[in-house]
Amino acid sequence: MTRKIVVVGGGAAGMGAAGGAKAVDPQCAVTVYTGFDDVAYSPCGIPYVHGKEIDSFERLFLASKQAYVDAGIDVRYNADVTRVDVNRKVVEVAGQGEVPWDTLVLATGFNYADPGVPGGDLGGLYYVKNIREAMEWDKVLDTVRSAVVVEASPLGVEMVTALAHRGIETHLVDPSPWPMSEIADPDIMAPVEESWSELGVTTHFNTTLKAFRGDGQVRAVQTSDGEINADLAVICTHKEPNNALGVAAGLNIGSTGGFIVDERMATSAPGVFAAGDCTEIPNGLTGVPLQGLTGSHAYAQGKTAGINAAGGSRAYSAVYVPWGTAAGKWIIGGASLGETTATALGIPYVVGSAEGISRARYYPGVKPVKVKLLAEPGSLRLLGAQMVGGEGIKERADFLAVAIKFGLTLHDLAHMENVYSPAIGALNEPIVVAAQSGIDGLRKG
Amino acid sequence: MTRKIVVVGGGAAGMGAAGGAKAVDPQCAVTVYTGFDDVAYSPCGIPYVHGKEIDSFERLFLASKQAYVDAGIDVRYNADVTRVDVNRKVVEVAGQGEVPWDTLVLATGFNYADPGVPGGDLGGLYYVKNIREAMEWDKVLDTVRSAVVVEASPLGVEMVTALAHRGIETHLVDPSPWPMSEIADPDIMAPVEESWSELGVTTHFNTTLKAFRGDGQVRAVQTSDGEINADLAVICTHKEPNNALGVAAGLNIGSTGGFIVDERMATSAPGVFAAGDCTEIPNGLTGVPLQGLTGSHAYAQGKTAGINAAGGSRAYSAVYVPWGTAAGKWIIGGASLGETTATALGIPYVVGSAEGISRARYYPGVKPVKVKLLAEPGSLRLLGAQMVGGEGIKERADFLAVAIKFGLTLHDLAHMENVYSPAIGALNEPIVVAAQSGIDGLRKG
Ligand SMILES: Cc1cc2nc3c(=O)[nH]c(=O)nc-3n(C[C@H](O)[C@H](O)[C@H](O)COP(=O)(O)OP(=O)(O)OC[C@H]3O[C@@H](n4cnc5c(N)ncnc54)[C@H](O)[C@@H]3O)c2cc1C
Ligand SMILES: Cc1cc2nc3c(=O)[nH]c(=O)nc-3n(C[C@H](O)[C@H](O)[C@H](O)COP(=O)(O)OP(=O)(O)OC[C@H]3O[C@@H](n4cnc5c(N)ncnc54)[C@H](O)[C@@H]3O)c2cc1C
Repeated sequence: MTRKIVVVGGGAAGMGAAGGAKAVDPQCAVTVYTGFDDVAYSPCGIPYVHGKEIDSFERLFLASKQAYVDAGIDVRYNADVTRVDVNRKVVEVAGQGEVPWDTLVLATGFNYADPGVPGGDLGGLYYVKNIREAMEWDKVLDTVRSAVVVEASPLGVEMVTALAHRGIETHLVDPSPWPMSEIADPDIMAPVEESWSELGVTTHFNTTLKAFRGDGQVRAVQTSDGEINADLAVICTHKEPNNALGVAAGLNIGSTGGFIVDERMATSAPGVFAAGDCTEIPNGLTGVPLQGLTGSHAYAQGKTAGINAAGGSRAYSAVYVPWGTAAGKWIIGGASLGETTATALGIPYVVGSAEGISRARYYPGVKPVKVKLLAEPGSLRLLGAQMVGGEGIKERADFLAVAIKFGLTLHDLAHMENVYSPAIGALNEPIVVAAQSGIDGLRKG
Repeated sequence: MTRKIVVVGGGAAGMGAAGGAKAVDPQCAVTVYTGFDDVAYSPCGIPYVHGKEIDSFERLFLASKQAYVDAGIDVRYNADVTRVDVNRKVVEVAGQGEVPWDTLVLATGFNYADPGVPGGDLGGLYYVKNIREAMEWDKVLDTVRSAVVVEASPLGVEMVTALAHRGIETHLVDPSPWPMSEIADPDIMAPVEESWSELGVTTHFNTTLKAFRGDGQVRAVQTSDGEINADLAVICTHKEPNNALGVAAGLNIGSTGGFIVDERMATSAPGVFAAGDCTEIPNGLTGVPLQGLTGSHAYAQGKTAGINAAGGSRAYSAVYVPWGTAAGKWIIGGASLGETTATALGIPYVVGSAEGISRARYYPGVKPVKVKLLAEPGSLRLLGAQMVGGEGIKERADFLAVAIKFGLTLHDLAHMENVYSPAIGALNEPIVVAAQSGIDGLRKG
């Protein structure tokens, strides 16, 4: 008999699951429900269309609707799932009644945390997610003179840069002392702040949001530090797992609010899998559960969930979280722990850092690359990395996450070989220099 | 008593040795002898000044002569060492007599293999190495209409690209079927050849050099495939260890002609170390001795030799040889074995490959990244990698060399996490896709 797989969510996790399932069992019937008009677009590109780096929203669509039809994946658009029954193995779809499943993948993603201040119902508050809405907001941006970005999350950092590139008077309001403070260390973010200030951005750190003010439409943002006139507020609060359906269905929820899943991405209910930003996954070093990882994690988890939901076998392991993004005129990135996180968790560490370069010193386009490595005292096992620079940050972040996972030490990194070729790399690889400086004990945490 | 350290050679290895020695024992007397007018310039930049990517030779100098004086390193320019006596612990310097040493570092580098054909004494034959000579040759390039590059070594590949960028009618003559055939596989080099042809380069593969023809000055290059008119021949034959001094002194020489050294970079004679292109180093996977590695290897080996020569302790291990360079409009790179080398050595392998992208598909500047991974059948332990693309090749090559060294498998790489951020990386990391394709057994070697 044909296996019936229902996927709730058409984001990276949901579409990864649908594809993973079909790859294992081409005969299975996969139905994807999404509250949106589209699947298979890249939300990650939206800030860059707003910033005019990318010329059109059309470019963000990854595959046509027909491509899914051809792949035998039945996508139901604008179809909200309102209830999951794990005993009777059905979902209820708004206006369509119950739909049975043999296995279910919950990929309901994230919601931005509610700012929780008065004025949240005013016009002019932009939550960046749905591409159709983004297209409408992009027209609004042409009329906006002054905007406030609420919170310096990774998305907030991208949106600040985008609005500034767009020529809009841009303010950033964040309760922490520096941007992306939950992920990145202040020394890594300092050059980013500097480049924002070159772009005319006004940052308000250590500042809490008090209210949105206006008359139907937002006109000002009230903060602990005074009022900022603004025609637009972009809400970039942290991501919360969209867990309502699963909570109501009695699934086990972890400390972050994400669904608890095993290696197979199976939840606590038989036949029910979950993937993406609605789940939590332990950090491989600390065991601390993490929620709200990246689209790349969501996609890989979705694939794993889909494969297992279709009777295949695939494991997803604890994460070491390489991360990176463009920010101001820089690229920032890292893996696992920074000094801020390690300190917060009470994890002792030593530091090795280096200010290197991305190409030969004399080659056009050369950019600085700062690398900071955290290692366990004694063993010098790598615990984390933080970087700011111009190119090769993403590849170094990927590498260092693997290095952490496989227990490499500062000694291993200090002795690694590296390519030296003027157009693409310097004589001294910054990772090597940072590791050596850590060994030399120049700085201790 | 002050330790007297003599270094023969002012290239990457020699200067690395001098610096390494001074770092360990600031009191030691370090004297560097070089046949050239300069030390501490980057020969690696020369092709890019010829190609006009870099605007002046001045930029290639890394440190002033004064910087070495300040560092307490006594550099003797235009000072040829003519004899080494390992029993009496002296070197003989041309015109200066004998100089005693407590420890000696030989860093005499490489020579281009003699083309061994008639006409080798004609004018217009350019061996790219000495920066002062390169400055003179650069003026000659303004008058050259047609040039032949002899052999598609890594330097040959760079020089072909440089001459073509310079608007010179450029021919490449090589006895192998494709460029850099000792290092790179034909599928990796195919896009490079294509981009050369767009630049108007004429390649002559499977073609042997027969003679240089001319009357005092080269006017044509004779090959197994006919005669090519040329005002200039750039000799980019493979690198041979410059071992004459050491051979005469009775040092042990390996199968490649390079000095045999141990982990400390010590030669067979007590107190005598060697580093850089005059040595040979085993490949970590195969144990096969390699000679003529890169400037980056030379520098690291020099440092190791210098540290040990000054009484410190540092080990240099077998190599996994990440490599990379700009070539035509592409960047190529890899680590350890390619298919050609593996086949030549009789090493069985399976292949995983992928055609990925360097940024989000829709982000300006996105370039293809082809990754090919070789792994041991059964264990799927990584044996080598070959890549062609636009950005991030150097960092991936560095990473994959480490992955090979630490025994990572295609499974490990297929499950690695990766950064996805539109401006710097795609949803699917090409290394991951290549590893997965290898596992899926789509292709076998
Ligand atoms: C503006 C923006 C920029 C981003 N930039 C990056 C980046 O640069 N790099 C990166 O790796 N990631 C990026 N992300 C990805 C993001 O941070 C998440 O990690 C990713 O979207 C998580 O994917 P997901 O599939 O788990 O959830 P989501 O993308 O949140 O998708 C959830 C899906 O579930 C559907 N859904 C929810 N509830 C229901 C219901 N009851 N019934 C039916 N359908 C439902 C929604 O319609 C949606 O299709 C970005 C996201 C956004 C919005
Ligand atoms: C044009 C060019 C481009 C290159 N590009 C790259 C690149 O992109 N990336 C990279 O990693 N490497 C590159 N290299 C480096 C190169 O391939 C070698 O690996 C590197 O030069 C080896 O350094 P070395 O110090 O061992 O020897 P060498 O650079 O060969 O230096 C040898 C030194 O020894 C001296 N010497 C020799 N014999 C005597 C004697 N009897 N008495 C006194 N002095 C003596 C010479 O004067 C010289 O100073 C390039 C080299 C050249 C020439």
